[in-house]
Amino acid sequence: MIIVLRPDATEEQLEHIKEKLSGLGFKLNISVGAERTVIGIIGDRSVLEEYPLTAMPGVESAMAVSKPYKVASREFHPENTVIKLDNLVIGAEKIMVIAGPCSVEDKDLLLEIAQTVKKMGATMLRGGAFKPRTSPYAFQGLGEEGLKYLAAARDATGLKIITEVMDPRDVALVEKYADIIQLGARNMQNFNLLKEVGKCKKPVLLKRGLMSTIMELLMSAEYIMSQGNKEVILC
Amino acid sequence: MIIVLRPDATEEQLEHIKEKLSGLGFKLNISVGAERTVIGIIGDRSVLEEYPLTAMPGVESAMAVSKPYKVASREFHPENTVIKLDNLVIGAEKIMVIAGPCSVEDKDLLLEIAQTVKKMGATMLRGGAFKPRTSPYAFQGLGEEGLKYLAAARDATGLKIITEVMDPRDVALVEKYADIIQLGARNMQNFNLLKEVGKCKKPVLLKRGLMSTIMELLMSAEYIMSQGNKEVILC
Amino acid sequence: MIIVLRPDATEEQLEHIKEKLSGLGFKLNISVGAERTVIGIIGDRSVLEEYPLTAMPGVESAMAVSKPYKVASREFHPENTVIKLDNLVIGAEKIMVIAGPCSVEDKDLLLEIAQTVKKMGATMLRGGAFKPRTSPYAFQGLGEEGLKYLAAARDATGLKIITEVMDPRDVALVEKYADIIQLGARNMQNFNLLKEVGKCKKPVLLKRGLMSTIMELLMSAEYIMSQGNKEVILC
Amino acid sequence: MIIVLRPDATEEQLEHIKEKLSGLGFKLNISVGAERTVIGIIGDRSVLEEYPLTAMPGVESAMAVSKPYKVASREFHPENTVIKLDNLVIGAEKIMVIAGPCSVEDKDLLLEIAQTVKKMGATMLRGGAFKPRTSPYAFQGLGEEGLKYLAAARDATGLKIITEVMDPRDVALVEKYADIIQLGARNMQNFNLLKEVGKCKKPVLLKRGLMSTIMELLMSAEYIMSQGNKEVILC
Repeated sequence: MIIVLRPDATEEQLEHIKEKLSGLGFKLNISVGAERTVIGIIGDRSVLEEYPLTAMPGVESAMAVSKPYKVASREFHPENTVIKLDNLVIGAEKIMVIAGPCSVEDKDLLLEIAQTVKKMGATMLRGGAFKPRTSPYAFQGLGEEGLKYLAAARDATGLKIITEVMDPRDVALVEKYADIIQLGARNMQNFNLLKEVGKCKKPVLLKRGLMSTIMELLMSAEYIMSQGNKEVILC
Repeated sequence: MIIVLRPDATEEQLEHIKEKLSGLGFKLNISVGAERTVIGIIGDRSVLEEYPLTAMPGVESAMAVSKPYKVASREFHPENTVIKLDNLVIGAEKIMVIAGPCSVEDKDLLLEIAQTVKKMGATMLRGGAFKPRTSPYAFQGLGEEGLKYLAAARDATGLKIITEVMDPRDVALVEKYADIIQLGARNMQNFNLLKEVGKCKKPVLLKRGLMSTIMELLMSAEYIMSQGNKEVILC
Repeated sequence: MIIVLRPDATEEQLEHIKEKLSGLGFKLNISVGAERTVIGIIGDRSVLEEYPLTAMPGVESAMAVSKPYKVASREFHPENTVIKLDNLVIGAEKIMVIAGPCSVEDKDLLLEIAQTVKKMGATMLRGGAFKPRTSPYAFQGLGEEGLKYLAAARDATGLKIITEVMDPRDVALVEKYADIIQLGARNMQNFNLLKEVGKCKKPVLLKRGLMSTIMELLMSAEYIMSQGNKEVILC
Repeated sequence: MIIVLRPDATEEQLEHIKEKLSGLGFKLNISVGAERTVIGIIGDRSVLEEYPLTAMPGVESAMAVSKPYKVASREFHPENTVIKLDNLVIGAEKIMVIAGPCSVEDKDLLLEIAQTVKKMGATMLRGGAFKPRTSPYAFQGLGEEGLKYLAAARDATGLKIITEVMDPRDVALVEKYADIIQLGARNMQNFNLLKEVGKCKKPVLLKRGLMSTIMELLMSAEYIMSQGNKEVILC
């Protein structure tokens, strides 16, 4: 972390800051600039995560030097993430096409769609058995019945299946049927759900929230990965 | 619902639309305007909710006449919603002030805060025992321990307590301690969570999502109310 | 236009609305639905544009049936817009690539860039002589000098040139040099500037504003086209 | 400015950066941290404004220490800005209420409105003579005629008047009539317009753009103030 002092910060304030941070075990690098004094704080960032740096008298702003995500960063894993599902390779040169209906509604119709999208080049079938709908009166999905239809379409076509989970209580059920577990945009910051899929052994496709920053998306990936599941696909 | 035809819609297309909608049991009101033909569809809207009106050949747009929320509307309940918690009345003329820390961290500190905010005029104490944090490495809340501290602060001060629930699995636990259950902005469209708090007997404070429309906020209130809980406070 | 009455609208209110709108010369189509009464207003929309329909007692909402843009609509001009600049055809099957530096800074450097982008397949050169910069202390562009460098690069390479205008007072100057006049995202709703370029004889490339809807973009195109200039490229 | 090096930055890259920046006359403060090397660049920020710091090999990010606005900052003018218009004081303890119609449409009606809002406590009258309208077919304002009506309402009531300018070519005209010049939300980044009102002797009310950050708002105030007009009211 770096903290920047206010132009009118006093010597006493600087001394107080130095004392506090040294006391927390940090090494400090103080640089007196033309306009402001800047303090580099060298040490473990996580200790500072909860510390109210900008509330200390004389401090104008604090800036992070290292990234708040660890397992999701290129520093932890410099190579591209490549996920293998039998003969399918996601994240390699060939682009995978996922296709299918919004929601799973009918067994025969789903099978027909699966055969059609396979013929057109798709390698994975998507379809929702649990549907996040704006209205409580809209169709909410077939639940496990829909998952079974997806599995049947996989058996018939060889397509891998991907389907959404909305509720931590349904994660085990969805994991049982899906090849890839989908997290929808509205659930990108449903943190307990992220933790549950982080314990799964299946890859997770994480959709970016409607107004989320890249940083927030990566932090949500970090939630999943921090639980052990390193196979996250950003969507 | 009202559908507007394209200026170049043909007689055949109009006939096809009339046949389809009449077949679904709707009464139609057809109005041939200077520029376009407009069809009013009279009957139960919910049947049309899933029907792909705008995909019919010749149709340019479809517009809802009635509102998609029912229980949350003024038509269902024209008066202001007034919620009573013993001697407290929320939604009447007097404004209630809710105050308290972001998260519950320490029993004595919480008690001190409670006494302070009470002295300053607050009638309710807020504080998070379950915290939705962007980073998995940030403090996630004390859980039930935090709820117990809140209850102790209520006992000591008489303040009502309000606290957030993030996970459908924790709803029963939070309901046991809280006077009002809070739903955070990030969970405004966590639909299964909405359904669970809709089954509670405690009032729900529903925060508006970060980029949500008023319509989406009202639909989320409808989710809660459609389960039986009519005491929703929009925040 | 269509107006929807409130469920509790009275007979008197309906009569008052009918009287007012008939008095303005409109034909009305009244449809009494299961839940609400809907009135279709048949006639010239522009008369209603300024009329406070939703302020009339008993009215819940008003919805436009026809589009607020006319010249920019497919109804006015059903075919794709195709713009010809000598041998270049914009809007046909072949995609045109426009390339060049953010701002024009140096004559020789610009020429070198022009030759490079031409070699790589670009058919038009872009570069700013007037720069909309967030800071008043940042480089604001070379002005006419920059336009001359662009013209020189066109002479040397045969590339067409496109450059931005920010100020109604500079439109004539930019038109003199540019093959296509660019309007930047921040100026999409600079309405007087839109009117000025609408009087130009050169095509206009109109960038979509940072948070603008498609409707707003089309209305800005309408501003330009309503002045006579029909060659608008949406960007 | 501070630049943060990539964790894998090489010694050669560090040497190259040091050479370049020293060559530009900057003093450097290099701090080797646990995870990254951080370089503080001490000297005049404006020289770096255009310099592609993050494009140098080995650099991960660059962060500004000082603020990009100068005249608009508290450092330049630590006290609150207080603007006096005869007996009115804006920015002091008493809140001023500005009221009036969206657009000036009729002389008598405006006078009636002025008298009404005065009676209700307003100290300034607002009304648009130049109207930024989404549609070219909507009423665009009365222009100078509207300004004269405003002046007449001021004469009759003693209210100060505030009105919007949209076009650099109209600034002198609006300044002649208005007590305060308004810049609308859509023109917050109409930089040439900002410069023109910056040359005026009348206070400027600057509205925040629809999706603008506080930093962008302050930079727009800086545009005005950098031209000499220090009386900017943020709205």
